[in-house]
Amino acid sequence: MPHPFIAVFDLEGVFTPEIWIAVAGATGIAGLRRTTRDEPDYDKLMRQRLQILEEHGLTLKDIQEVIAGLEPLPGAREFLGWMRSQAPVIILSDTFYEFAAPLMAKLAHPTLFCNSLEVDARGMIMDYHLRIRDGKREAVQALKQIHFRVIAAGDSYNDTTMLAAADHGILFRPPANVADEFPQFPVVTEYEALHGLIESLLAQSR
Amino acid sequence: MPHPFIAVFDLEGVFTPEIWIAVAGATGIAGLRRTTRDEPDYDKLMRQRLQILEEHGLTLKDIQEVIAGLEPLPGAREFLGWMRSQAPVIILSDTFYEFAAPLMAKLAHPTLFCNSLEVDARGMIMDYHLRIRDGKREAVQALKQIHFRVIAAGDSYNDTTMLAAADHGILFRPPANVADEFPQFPVVTEYEALHGLIESLLAQSR
Repeated sequence: MPHPFIAVFDLEGVFTPEIWIAVAGATGIAGLRRTTRDEPDYDKLMRQRLQILEEHGLTLKDIQEVIAGLEPLPGAREFLGWMRSQAPVIILSDTFYEFAAPLMAKLAHPTLFCNSLEVDARGMIMDYHLRIRDGKREAVQALKQIHFRVIAAGDSYNDTTMLAAADHGILFRPPANVADEFPQFPVVTEYEALHGLIESLLAQSR
Repeated sequence: MPHPFIAVFDLEGVFTPEIWIAVAGATGIAGLRRTTRDEPDYDKLMRQRLQILEEHGLTLKDIQEVIAGLEPLPGAREFLGWMRSQAPVIILSDTFYEFAAPLMAKLAHPTLFCNSLEVDARGMIMDYHLRIRDGKREAVQALKQIHFRVIAAGDSYNDTTMLAAADHGILFRPPANVADEFPQFPVVTEYEALHGLIESLLAQSR
């Protein structure tokens, strides 16, 4: 009998807006619009972001207030509700627990594996801590090691090692360059299509 | 900076009634009252259970109807709601996805790692498949491997390898013999005390 399924998903771009882009929009700071789509070196990107926050005197609380005003993408909550009735689900994200909390509440608290921030007495973000290098891929491998069949979906370049490690990798609303570079992963752009694709995978073992 | 916390919990006896005991009660079959508290050899126990179901002509659907009538333990949903607002949560159980689904819905779909049943054309349960041997302990080890600090709580003998593997193991409402044999684990009997103990652990790193 095949192993049971687990489904893992990227967060930003799949279920929620890109957090840093929302912060850039709310603060009017253009430098915060850069993401891993623009700068694949995540550490370099994060150092730039923290420096910009310091320069503008923006505290963790300021950022949390912006994030608390965000909503999940339309249809995300319904899709996740269905998905969680079908298989265990884990969200694998490069974001930080300190940022994600209000969005997780709006998604009915799915299990999230992500990273942590270090904040000083002023409330300024001094540093960030990646829980583990290439955390999305490592999580998929750990789940396979305890005998799950992993379905993974994500939207961007930094999701592709996770998709490759999974038994079934899916690109959801990827930018054209990512879809072009990774033709091995099916591309879907709507939750309905994602639902249909995953349903067909689940049905294979029933 | 220490690794972020994750909290893992046994299901039956911690958040829900013991499923097989409920089935025994609903069907009046005393032989189904036995649990791992009575028979530590899980495979032997399961073979006995499946034989009893076969003898009484009880299908998976019959059992699912009993389980659909069960409710989480009083306070379980509220405790889990708080816990999921504080840290990622995974339920680690020896039960089966086919049994647990209605109870998971009543607990707002926490992530569950458990096992699978094999059902024949008559709807009779023919076999069960443990996803992995000593699955609770293996899951804790996999979570530590991807750099989580693990808080684990369970009630019975078959939880003790999970508690020992975790960074912080807690016995919740254990039978006296388990509490006596494993004095290294703190014992709590109410959700309020479990909440308080976990809150104090979480506070150590903040």
